[in-house]
Amino acid sequence: KRARAFGISIGVLPTGKNNAITDVAGLRVGHTTLIRGNDVRTGVTAILPHAGNLFQQKVPAAVFVGNGFGKLAGSTQVQELGNLESPVILTNTLGVGTAMNAVVGYTLQQPGNEQVQSVNALVGETNDGHLNDIRGRHVSEADVLEAIKQAKDGAVAEGNVGAGTGTVCFGFKGGIGTASRKTPDATGGYTVGVLVQTNFGGVLQVNGVPVGQELGQYYLSQHLQEKADGSCMLVVATDAPVDARNLERIAKRAMMGLAKTGGIASNGSGDYVIAFSTHEALRVPYTSKEKTQTMTLLRNDEMSPLFMAVIEATEEAIINSLFKAETMQGKEQHVVEALPLDKVLKLLKKHNALKH
Amino acid sequence: KRARAFGISIGVLPTGKNNAITDVAGLRVGHTTLIRGNDVRTGVTAILPHAGNLFQQKVPAAVFVGNGFGKLAGSTQVQELGNLESPVILTNTLGVGTAMNAVVGYTLQQPGNEQVQSVNALVGETNDGHLNDIRGRHVSEADVLEAIKQAKDGAVAEGNVGAGTGTVCFGFKGGIGTASRKTPDATGGYTVGVLVQTNFGGVLQVNGVPVGQELGQYYLSQHLQEKADGSCMLVVATDAPVDARNLERIAKRAMMGLAKTGGIASNGSGDYVIAFSTHEALRVPYTSKEKTQTMTLLRNDEMSPLFMAVIEATEEAIINSLFKAETMQGKEQHVVEALPLDKVLKLLKKHNALKH
Amino acid sequence: KRARAFGISIGVLPTGKNNAITDVAGLRVGHTTLIRGNDVRTGVTAILPHAGNLFQQKVPAAVFVGNGFGKLAGSTQVQELGNLESPVILTNTLGVGTAMNAVVGYTLQQPGNEQVQSVNALVGETNDGHLNDIRGRHVSEADVLEAIKQAKDGAVAEGNVGAGTGTVCFGFKGGIGTASRKTPDATGGYTVGVLVQTNFGGVLQVNGVPVGQELGQYYLSQHLQEKADGSCMLVVATDAPVDARNLERIAKRAMMGLAKTGGIASNGSGDYVIAFSTHEALRVPYTSKEKTQTMTLLRNDEMSPLFMAVIEATEEAIINSLFKAETMQGKEQHVVEALPLDKVLKLLKKHNALKH
Amino acid sequence: KRARAFGISIGVLPTGKNNAITDVAGLRVGHTTLIRGNDVRTGVTAILPHAGNLFQQKVPAAVFVGNGFGKLAGSTQVQELGNLESPVILTNTLGVGTAMNAVVGYTLQQPGNEQVQSVNALVGETNDGHLNDIRGRHVSEADVLEAIKQAKDGAVAEGNVGAGTGTVCFGFKGGIGTASRKTPDATGGYTVGVLVQTNFGGVLQVNGVPVGQELGQYYLSQHLQEKADGSCMLVVATDAPVDARNLERIAKRAMMGLAKTGGIASNGSGDYVIAFSTHEALRVPYTSKEKTQTMTLLRNDEMSPLFMAVIEATEEAIINSLFKAETMQGKEQHVVEALPLDKVLKLLKKHNALKH
Repeated sequence: KRARAFGISIGVLPTGKNNAITDVAGLRVGHTTLIRGNDVRTGVTAILPHAGNLFQQKVPAAVFVGNGFGKLAGSTQVQELGNLESPVILTNTLGVGTAMNAVVGYTLQQPGNEQVQSVNALVGETNDGHLNDIRGRHVSEADVLEAIKQAKDGAVAEGNVGAGTGTVCFGFKGGIGTASRKTPDATGGYTVGVLVQTNFGGVLQVNGVPVGQELGQYYLSQHLQEKADGSCMLVVATDAPVDARNLERIAKRAMMGLAKTGGIASNGSGDYVIAFSTHEALRVPYTSKEKTQTMTLLRNDEMSPLFMAVIEATEEAIINSLFKAETMQGKEQHVVEALPLDKVLKLLKKHNALKH
Repeated sequence: KRARAFGISIGVLPTGKNNAITDVAGLRVGHTTLIRGNDVRTGVTAILPHAGNLFQQKVPAAVFVGNGFGKLAGSTQVQELGNLESPVILTNTLGVGTAMNAVVGYTLQQPGNEQVQSVNALVGETNDGHLNDIRGRHVSEADVLEAIKQAKDGAVAEGNVGAGTGTVCFGFKGGIGTASRKTPDATGGYTVGVLVQTNFGGVLQVNGVPVGQELGQYYLSQHLQEKADGSCMLVVATDAPVDARNLERIAKRAMMGLAKTGGIASNGSGDYVIAFSTHEALRVPYTSKEKTQTMTLLRNDEMSPLFMAVIEATEEAIINSLFKAETMQGKEQHVVEALPLDKVLKLLKKHNALKH
Repeated sequence: KRARAFGISIGVLPTGKNNAITDVAGLRVGHTTLIRGNDVRTGVTAILPHAGNLFQQKVPAAVFVGNGFGKLAGSTQVQELGNLESPVILTNTLGVGTAMNAVVGYTLQQPGNEQVQSVNALVGETNDGHLNDIRGRHVSEADVLEAIKQAKDGAVAEGNVGAGTGTVCFGFKGGIGTASRKTPDATGGYTVGVLVQTNFGGVLQVNGVPVGQELGQYYLSQHLQEKADGSCMLVVATDAPVDARNLERIAKRAMMGLAKTGGIASNGSGDYVIAFSTHEALRVPYTSKEKTQTMTLLRNDEMSPLFMAVIEATEEAIINSLFKAETMQGKEQHVVEALPLDKVLKLLKKHNALKH
Repeated sequence: KRARAFGISIGVLPTGKNNAITDVAGLRVGHTTLIRGNDVRTGVTAILPHAGNLFQQKVPAAVFVGNGFGKLAGSTQVQELGNLESPVILTNTLGVGTAMNAVVGYTLQQPGNEQVQSVNALVGETNDGHLNDIRGRHVSEADVLEAIKQAKDGAVAEGNVGAGTGTVCFGFKGGIGTASRKTPDATGGYTVGVLVQTNFGGVLQVNGVPVGQELGQYYLSQHLQEKADGSCMLVVATDAPVDARNLERIAKRAMMGLAKTGGIASNGSGDYVIAFSTHEALRVPYTSKEKTQTMTLLRNDEMSPLFMAVIEATEEAIINSLFKAETMQGKEQHVVEALPLDKVLKLLKKHNALKH
């Protein structure tokens, strides 16, 4: 079960229907999960901002680098042009090149793209090398294409799936997590959805409760030399009409949600936030007869509810990734235990942090 | 009393001796508090990295812009050259020009600076216009010089003092707060100190407890149209031997500490982090016969404990600013209540968030 | 006479009517020139993007830091919010605080701003300390207000005026310069205007001719230990409908125009570009009943002509500052010679770089 | 012949021995040139900062984004950590993923890297799709490895080789070019080398002479609708002891050298500068028993000669790429003419821009 099903209610804003990034209408998510033999524990997650041809109908986008010890591909073009022209792909650290190749192939082959000669693939990663034979480079272009093909709306599989198959978070089994928030109708009633690939460390807090400390498992603790390193990829989507500049501001706040789970953006963590708007009227056509584009955008003054939404959704998405992940054995018989939910819930009860 | 005196123990690392930014040896803090008549509620806080001539012996420094709706002066030179050559001054929004003038005058007049023709004053601010007649521009150059003159080591006055005299935080009276952390001896035993000027909003959390929610006073709550706007200035000092690049990374983490108090870096908030190292061997002389400088610096791999330290110290410094601030009446008979400590402590007890 | 009057035709695009930043309709420029006694050689230049209340009707804007050894105030808010709410003021290095104070006072006192409590003054500077008694801090708030008051459209005074009164460029007398370009009608027919305050060094090139080398006066030459340090402030205005993101890209290209004059953005040079759009439909109202703003913006694809325009206009504005500046004697009887136009024109003739 | 052999003497500083990036001792360059049938015109260029294991002995490095319409991989980690751990690879736009894969494989297989699980490949590109069947994606991992293997010191092949095989510059055939400069002994006697992959447009200037205008071939000219788009990759190496912060400042100046050739960094141009120091004492070991590293670094004040050096070397490297490139026919029988050297030299003579 997800965190909320246990009575964990993070923040003050309501969730969307599925409490998932797919609550942003039109957005789809697909996973390819690779679990083979004793040591392949990896995968791919694809996020498609809309159902059309992404290259022909780009979406406003921004990237914020929380901590740049990572191999995110495609960020500089997104920053320069303010838009995204491909699915967002998450995978493992050594699979980025392969994922780029897959996205390039996917884009070249889409109907309407016959003349396209330049594709900016946005590919993020975290390092699953503790459980996965990462040096074996088991992610193929076909795996990436399959994740794109499987993308669908509705509920999103979490935990040990897709790019989260082999990840570790706060010393427990991490994975994929998602959540969403709606801003009050009076401020626009927009949806903000977040999907995370959690593979980082620090001192775990669940809804404000110092779980890591109480379990004695945290960065710099004496009993456990848990390394805080790893990474977190954070993908933020919204249907609010915001341009690249304000999307970058929204992206920046996702790191504040991560902070509330006890993450510290350690030296070795590649923490990146990708944010985009699916608002239809803001699509950027690849070609246009017009020299100008008319856009109706939220004023700066309207940003704060969206900032709060992304902070809350990020915190909950990370907690969901931990709640949904299961104990896994992988490479070299390494075992990473799932977060012990019974103990955690007891702690939350002790700290009066459950709604029911 | 400060938060820790009530049994609030934030994080896992030990504090320095005074649990203050002044635990970084040699650093001094001074305040000028301006409370006059019904509507002057403002002031100046000065942080001096070391006791020598700062212009002649600059310190490695960096600035991170959490949210740039603010008037911080001097940031681009700090970023370009990687050092700081003046006291750090905090004051109110419309006092920045005056504070710059004061710092320029102070620097020109210091013995040894007779030939100096260029001074980069680093001046931050938050807007105390709710309690203070900010349009009256009551901060004078003399007030700034007095804060510099009063600077001393040891315990630091908090709450309604200096640049925090008229500030508002989470709808309660904010002010100046400070805290410090020591990293484990095995990782260097360095001190990280933080001083904050709190004037921002969001959904207050105290040591993980959702105080803002339980008191019904938070951004976007129905009963109270608290605006989250305002600002937070965060000054981080360390004795660790780190250069400007790693100081910028440390600065970035201070925003993660702010996040843990429930801050959301709202649109109207000018949230800036200034970080510097007081490590003596890293002083940058204004002039030198040598073309090179030899420095012994921490490797990137050693940064994570410092990151954790700044997150913890920032969270506690903000909480201290609230705990030490007192109810204040100011401009147009506006009253801002202090955080109701009795209620807050009850809530913390209810949530098992007190050590004793 | 200005460079073009001698047959120097820089670039391929046509100029605006006055070949000045004021060719951008509605923009006004004012100077206060301070020449007193033997050692006051300084001043103020004010650029007003439009004739209305700038705080109530902000303009889209961006700042690019070419080299941040300077004291530019106000840049972080412009970058965060994407707009400018004050006149742009240029003055000397130690006058920035005073200019900020003047802009704050000016803004607070404008009709309609009675409730304003926060003003972001954008103030740039270069160091005129070779000719000017800069430590005497002779620029007053009244001088700044006078520059604002004197602002007018039409031809712009260049050379030893305003903030350029005491500056030095390539070892010759620098000052204020301006120029403009029009993009081809087929690409929009937009105007780009540039105004510069030149106080930097390198190896002077005039319209491609190596004047500095041939005159034996350049950075690192044996005969003259000219220091390349100093600074250059570059203000770019356009009537093209571009937002902050694309204005930042335009700003970045101004440094390429500076490069073509032989500037090297030396370590000690504070080289900043401020770019804004005066396009009326893009004004950002301080307050609005609407949560959104509808804007018609140029597509990324339409940017290149504007990039070329700003490069050409910047190059010519710098050359104009040198051509219009006159030999000046100042502080400690320092004399800085004007660019020897007769020799320069001979060199340009020798290199076939004159149109007539 | 290269530009200098015709008497074209750009700038004031002397060149290194080979006037090539390989004048930076220890640095090696290798090319794989792919010319097959009618429509394969592409390749790979590899730059190896030193002869050792780059992953184990990283070099200080920085990236500057001149214009981010490009697919450069690896930039964020270089910026965060301040170092480079792989060969720099240049290829075509759609070959970046393959090049990343090759670099990952190369690194994993090097002796000593048996435990490595994370590799940051720095791969740049320009779009050679006018002459090359870029959609065919003809660059293989083997091609990339071959370029690395072929890397050698001494003179560097220029023009239609390696990653420059199919590029177009100012409407003429572009390619690979290189140059170097030495700073005066009194300022350190350091070497700065530059290698470029030229595929961009604007208004060509050769040593200050308006060649593009006089030949009637330039961006926005009526007779030729030359698109200025394309890209330029610029790789800067130096043996000067400078850290990442000052390398970023050096990188920024390379765009100023590009400006002097008439480049405008058009909207569609992916212009990136990669700068690194080969100074042996600054190598960053992957693992170390020490928590600190002692480094002797140039002071900020010593940077200006290096800035001038990189500007000059970049300008000359670009001109060399044009001088050494030859007319090429490729995809769909597109022909791109070489720069007509006879006409160009006549123009340079007319403008007195030749030394002999």
